Amino acid sequence: MARIAPLSGFPEWLPAERAVEVHVVDTLRRVFELHGFAGIETRSVEPLSQMLRKGEIDKEVYVVRRLHADEPGDAGAPDDDTLGLHFDLTVPLARYVLQNAGHLVFPFKRYQIQRSWRGERPQDGRFREFVQADVDVVGRDTLPRHHEVDVPLVMVEALRALDVGDVRMRVNDRRVAEGLVRGLGLDDVPPVLAAVDKLAKIGPDAVGDLLRERAGASAAQVDAVLEMAGVSGPGAARALTDLVARHGAGSDALHEAVGDLQRLLDAAEEVAPGAVVADLSVVRGLDYYTGSVYETELVGQEDLGSVCSGGRYDDLASDGATRHPGVGLSIGVSRLVSRLLRDDVVRASRPVPTAVLVAVSDEATRSRSDAVARALRARGIPSDTAPTAAKFGRQIRHADRLGVPFVWFPGAAGDPDEVKDIRSGDQVVADAATWEPPSADRYQQVVPVHHP
Amino acid sequence: MARIAPLSGFPEWLPAERAVEVHVVDTLRRVFELHGFAGIETRSVEPLSQMLRKGEIDKEVYVVRRLHADEPGDAGAPDDDTLGLHFDLTVPLARYVLQNAGHLVFPFKRYQIQRSWRGERPQDGRFREFVQADVDVVGRDTLPRHHEVDVPLVMVEALRALDVGDVRMRVNDRRVAEGLVRGLGLDDVPPVLAAVDKLAKIGPDAVGDLLRERAGASAAQVDAVLEMAGVSGPGAARALTDLVARHGAGSDALHEAVGDLQRLLDAAEEVAPGAVVADLSVVRGLDYYTGSVYETELVGQEDLGSVCSGGRYDDLASDGATRHPGVGLSIGVSRLVSRLLRDDVVRASRPVPTAVLVAVSDEATRSRSDAVARALRARGIPSDTAPTAAKFGRQIRHADRLGVPFVWFPGAAGDPDEVKDIRSGDQVVADAATWEPPSADRYQQVVPVHHP
Repeated sequence: MARIAPLSGFPEWLPAERAVEVHVVDTLRRVFELHGFAGIETRSVEPLSQMLRKGEIDKEVYVVRRLHADEPGDAGAPDDDTLGLHFDLTVPLARYVLQNAGHLVFPFKRYQIQRSWRGERPQDGRFREFVQADVDVVGRDTLPRHHEVDVPLVMVEALRALDVGDVRMRVNDRRVAEGLVRGLGLDDVPPVLAAVDKLAKIGPDAVGDLLRERAGASAAQVDAVLEMAGVSGPGAARALTDLVARHGAGSDALHEAVGDLQRLLDAAEEVAPGAVVADLSVVRGLDYYTGSVYETELVGQEDLGSVCSGGRYDDLASDGATRHPGVGLSIGVSRLVSRLLRDDVVRASRPVPTAVLVAVSDEATRSRSDAVARALRARGIPSDTAPTAAKFGRQIRHADRLGVPFVWFPGAAGDPDEVKDIRSGDQVVADAATWEPPSADRYQQVVPVHHP
Repeated sequence: MARIAPLSGFPEWLPAERAVEVHVVDTLRRVFELHGFAGIETRSVEPLSQMLRKGEIDKEVYVVRRLHADEPGDAGAPDDDTLGLHFDLTVPLARYVLQNAGHLVFPFKRYQIQRSWRGERPQDGRFREFVQADVDVVGRDTLPRHHEVDVPLVMVEALRALDVGDVRMRVNDRRVAEGLVRGLGLDDVPPVLAAVDKLAKIGPDAVGDLLRERAGASAAQVDAVLEMAGVSGPGAARALTDLVARHGAGSDALHEAVGDLQRLLDAAEEVAPGAVVADLSVVRGLDYYTGSVYETELVGQEDLGSVCSGGRYDDLASDGATRHPGVGLSIGVSRLVSRLLRDDVVRASRPVPTAVLVAVSDEATRSRSDAVARALRARGIPSDTAPTAAKFGRQIRHADRLGVPFVWFPGAAGDPDEVKDIRSGDQVVADAATWEPPSADRYQQVVPVHHP
């Protein structure tokens, strides 16, 4: 018989839970489209050779092969290249942009809400199969800096539209971090940023050890790097100015980058007060970021980690002749939804879409009940007919177990129909051609739960 | 650099094409929910041992493994069972129902719109990765016959809502076909139905050969089987009555099944005149169907094959103690969308969601343009700001290439704003707090194309 064990790391939701996920996805989509992002999806597989270019990730990739592949390359890949399930939506985007560049208008603004797969050890909020929601703006040759301001604010608006409490986006600029590190006399920048990236996880002492061991930092340099990484929040602008004056005075590039970061913070403060703060410890481990970098926590749920991260990358894709810089962020939809469900933050008003269950007196008159349901649906009211002509009490209990608020009783010959609100017990005469449910009852809704 | 070759059988759409797919999915979802079906998704992988129970399909399954699986079963499967990508949404449904039976209300009405994968030879309308839209009603122990009438009519309504021309659903009942075949004295039924299933593909002569060779049929039996398989369309009811009288007079089960089939046809004629016809050549190859079976073509596009098929199965799932019968149909969304696109049947009104592009005079006043876009979005009008402060002519050309109908010009100090319909050239004074686009222009829409 069917193996019915759940698979660790492959989340599935019950219907009422799935309604929450759909609500999240629909809300994100609405905000993305309001900002002019066009939706795409990409195939689930990419050639392995492409995915492994990104490094770090190779142990996590799922390879896909036909069970009885009878010839090399038979999974469908050209040149015998092995296929893998994509582990993010950025590698597929880069390939999609190159493949379709002639059909796209640049800057290309796209959103993509789709599953990805990683063979990580499953743990709370970390899945092997998960839904991500990405927005990116991809340029051709150039990409104006203002997109680094626009795109994170789209994500802040999208997260706020979810009604899941305060969000805090922490931002930095890789050019600022790199400029300061160089200003400190540490010319081998990557190991320094790799150490800073671990600050929240391993603490300042261990970061200091890494800086000494891997970047050859002196005690004074360690202190200065940790001082830099500690710059965050409301006083960040002044602290940053001070740091630049001490360590980066001579660098025009650093001054320009600090100005860009400040413009991002100013614009954010105007559009979404309090939501975006500077945090110089945010460097993002992946080394393809070349400008702004972003991480976002739910306030009070920082243990969940970042629910929305990204940054600017000057080399998203290139075909040799043309380079495509981009800036993008990604929301971990599955991670977010699993937390909303675990903490009962939002809930579906009912587990099914049905607003009205039409009762059936006996099987001989089922078509009469079907006609009522059809008349209600014709006016957009989700309706269903009772599955069996059981006693009315049992039909009402069936509606109750489904969470359906109304049960409709077709009148016997000559009698008018009646509809009962099974929550209050109120029963009134009604006409399927005109009756309207209260607007809050018409559709299944997802609403915040008010915990006492 | 990135490998940019498309993969045969793994379709991807450009933004304007994806808008058509989204329209199809949204429309199906709306109809399914109107009928009270709750949406679920399942994980993309199932244990291989489960998927292969269905037979026939083993050569088509994609196996999934971690690239560097360092221990047996490391893909995440229990008991070292290999995982594969699901090839349909029925096997996952059966497992989901058993796994969650305690949390579901039966009959469980679910819809599921999701990707599946099959390692088939790619060809027109046959993909290796594709989206399916399934509706099923799953009972516990029993499932009343009326669901075999209800569910196909939901699919007819859903397909009609897509505005893709006439649909024709051809229906039969496996019990009718089996009863008649037994009535002809052919007791080994499966090879007979397997031969009938090939009628459209190989023609009556070849079917006759199969019947003689594999089912031991006599010349008279071959003629009778082909006569049965030829019963279809408006005269079917009378022809069927005649067949039953000649070959199945003694069978109560056959009479009951013919009555059920007739009730399905009568109900369909009332609800969706002309859309559902009897066709006794429809038997569906898969041998788990035990009642009604359905196949659906687009009228005039029969070469595409069935875009919506399914049937009744008494043994969808069982945990030994409890049996779950079901009835369901599946729409091949990718197949349908690829044909809609190829034949230009419907089209997105524009490739992006944006209704208004707000021009930028110079980068110093970008925030003024951003504020206009924000004011429009606050009233639900999809709006974006021009990517660069190029000459207005270039900004208008950018809007034109995106298909954006309106360009907004913020007024210089003291002057009012103006908005231009770039299709007509009309330009009028406008206020971002009150201006409304024509309702047809507000959102990207998917509309039928009127071919001359």
